[in-house]
Amino acid sequence: MAGETVITVIGNLVDDPELRYTPSGAAVAKFRIASTPRTFDRESNAWKDGEALFLTCSVWRQYAENVAESLSRGTRVIVQGRLKQRSYETREGEKRTVYELDVEEVGPALRFSTAKLNKSGGGSGGGGRSFGGGGNSGSAPDDPWASAAPAGASAGGGGFDEDPPF
Amino acid sequence: MAGETVITVIGNLVDDPELRYTPSGAAVAKFRIASTPRTFDRESNAWKDGEALFLTCSVWRQYAENVAESLSRGTRVIVQGRLKQRSYETREGEKRTVYELDVEEVGPALRFSTAKLNKSGGGSGGGGRSFGGGGNSGSAPDDPWASAAPAGASAGGGGFDEDPPF
Amino acid sequence: MAGETVITVIGNLVDDPELRYTPSGAAVAKFRIASTPRTFDRESNAWKDGEALFLTCSVWRQYAENVAESLSRGTRVIVQGRLKQRSYETREGEKRTVYELDVEEVGPALRFSTAKLNKSGGGSGGGGRSFGGGGNSGSAPDDPWASAAPAGASAGGGGFDEDPPF
Amino acid sequence: MAGETVITVIGNLVDDPELRYTPSGAAVAKFRIASTPRTFDRESNAWKDGEALFLTCSVWRQYAENVAESLSRGTRVIVQGRLKQRSYETREGEKRTVYELDVEEVGPALRFSTAKLNKSGGGSGGGGRSFGGGGNSGSAPDDPWASAAPAGASAGGGGFDEDPPF
Repeated sequence: MAGETVITVIGNLVDDPELRYTPSGAAVAKFRIASTPRTFDRESNAWKDGEALFLTCSVWRQYAENVAESLSRGTRVIVQGRLKQRSYETREGEKRTVYELDVEEVGPALRFSTAKLNKSGGGSGGGGRSFGGGGNSGSAPDDPWASAAPAGASAGGGGFDEDPPF
Repeated sequence: MAGETVITVIGNLVDDPELRYTPSGAAVAKFRIASTPRTFDRESNAWKDGEALFLTCSVWRQYAENVAESLSRGTRVIVQGRLKQRSYETREGEKRTVYELDVEEVGPALRFSTAKLNKSGGGSGGGGRSFGGGGNSGSAPDDPWASAAPAGASAGGGGFDEDPPF
Repeated sequence: MAGETVITVIGNLVDDPELRYTPSGAAVAKFRIASTPRTFDRESNAWKDGEALFLTCSVWRQYAENVAESLSRGTRVIVQGRLKQRSYETREGEKRTVYELDVEEVGPALRFSTAKLNKSGGGSGGGGRSFGGGGNSGSAPDDPWASAAPAGASAGGGGFDEDPPF
Repeated sequence: MAGETVITVIGNLVDDPELRYTPSGAAVAKFRIASTPRTFDRESNAWKDGEALFLTCSVWRQYAENVAESLSRGTRVIVQGRLKQRSYETREGEKRTVYELDVEEVGPALRFSTAKLNKSGGGSGGGGRSFGGGGNSGSAPDDPWASAAPAGASAGGGGFDEDPPF
């Protein structure tokens, strides 16, 4: 794919993510974020909230399950995705358009919180969380990250043992 | 500040973050990330790693402490920050230039892992983590987010109770 | 302003820009762009257009006049701006939301065309670049670029005579 | 290609672009840009330049020729490209690393200037836009834009005659 509009948004989840499954069994999570800019008000000498930007985001497969398990209403997140436009007709026959974000990457912003990470889809990890096994990431065959080692493993593997360039 | 070059990078930590304190007591964390593109090789019918991009990132105050506590070598992260250039002279008198990222927001990408979040600098949270109190975020007076409610609190507060626009 | 969602979009103008003036005399130009991604279709061995993303963009003051004079229907442009959401009610009392781009910078992409540039706010156009006169940019007092030397002049001035860092 | 670090930079050309040809006849243009942030100084009540970020950019084929013909020292530009890192050894055997931008799209920012556009790959220039002939873009076979109609033509063609979604 070329020429997509990839954007990054910082915002807070308006609600808990909604996790669903397609008939073929693929997970998809939807969540809405509100991104609120702030302006400095010289009179009150304080920052004031501007008007929020709301965006609906969707994420697929194992990533969807990780999102549903990790994020909840109010979580501050960083989202990178493709800005898409979807048109539909209402029952009254009116055309409507919504803008959505096809998530490429998402995670909690650590500004106000810490995170304890666990490898998804397998393994044990620190505090005894078990994810039931499987480890089938369910990635599509054309997913460039499908064969990527999970974060924890890649650290110990190749890739980062090479001498950094400076 | 206007006209800064704000970029978003997806990558993996090359090492654990390094946490230090300035003489005045401000925390700063530094970490290096490697961002590796992938190309699809039609002959082998598989994705292959391209040459990695390495960037040193720095983050300040409470955010630095959250990063140092949450991220480690190999963690896949999303980082948004200002791309900066810093020049210096070697002991031999040669000019050198490095590029660095002044972090605005950073967090773990949930592609291969789940995250259990805890409000930083205060509170109790789920599994009995205690952060010793304090709650001085140490933010600079001109930090627009200094007075922001932490993620958990903001969810229950105002802001997101308003009816979403559609 | 902090925490705004700044995005960059590559697209083509759907129509000529519309130039208007506020009662106080400030120029504002509006234009719509269509950004069309392409996917490679392995069967036909060719690139195919995906669904276009449409966005309305607005730009102010001298910049608006430059846009109206330079761009027209079909022009391929690069636009950087703040993604905003605006809600309104229809005459029937229904809530609607549109997404718009407050332009920070815009210009023609040179993929399929060359550009002959002329300093704005002056006169002649056509033959012979004249950098002499006029030059009231009409910028707001809090515009960080208001006092910036125009492109041509800044080249000859300071700033870029310094030795590049490598 | 997936996972590349695509960034957008606003800056001014430090020098005129340099146009060269590979042995096989492909054009490549290199240019350096300086991107200078500004901070508002409350004491002097004026905006002050921060430290500039310098980046070397390269662009290929017909795009390179368009850049070389259109841009010059001092031109304010918008550049979108992939941030790359290139390592090499000096004659003394020291490792060095430079960061560069592989340009995807570039064009003059219209903040301080207007632009008169001409379809590239044709001939005349100056008076009278001709969209008729020539037009070998010299694009590589895997260039998604290779078969794209030039800006002027696409406006009159399909694509934008469809009813805008709102």
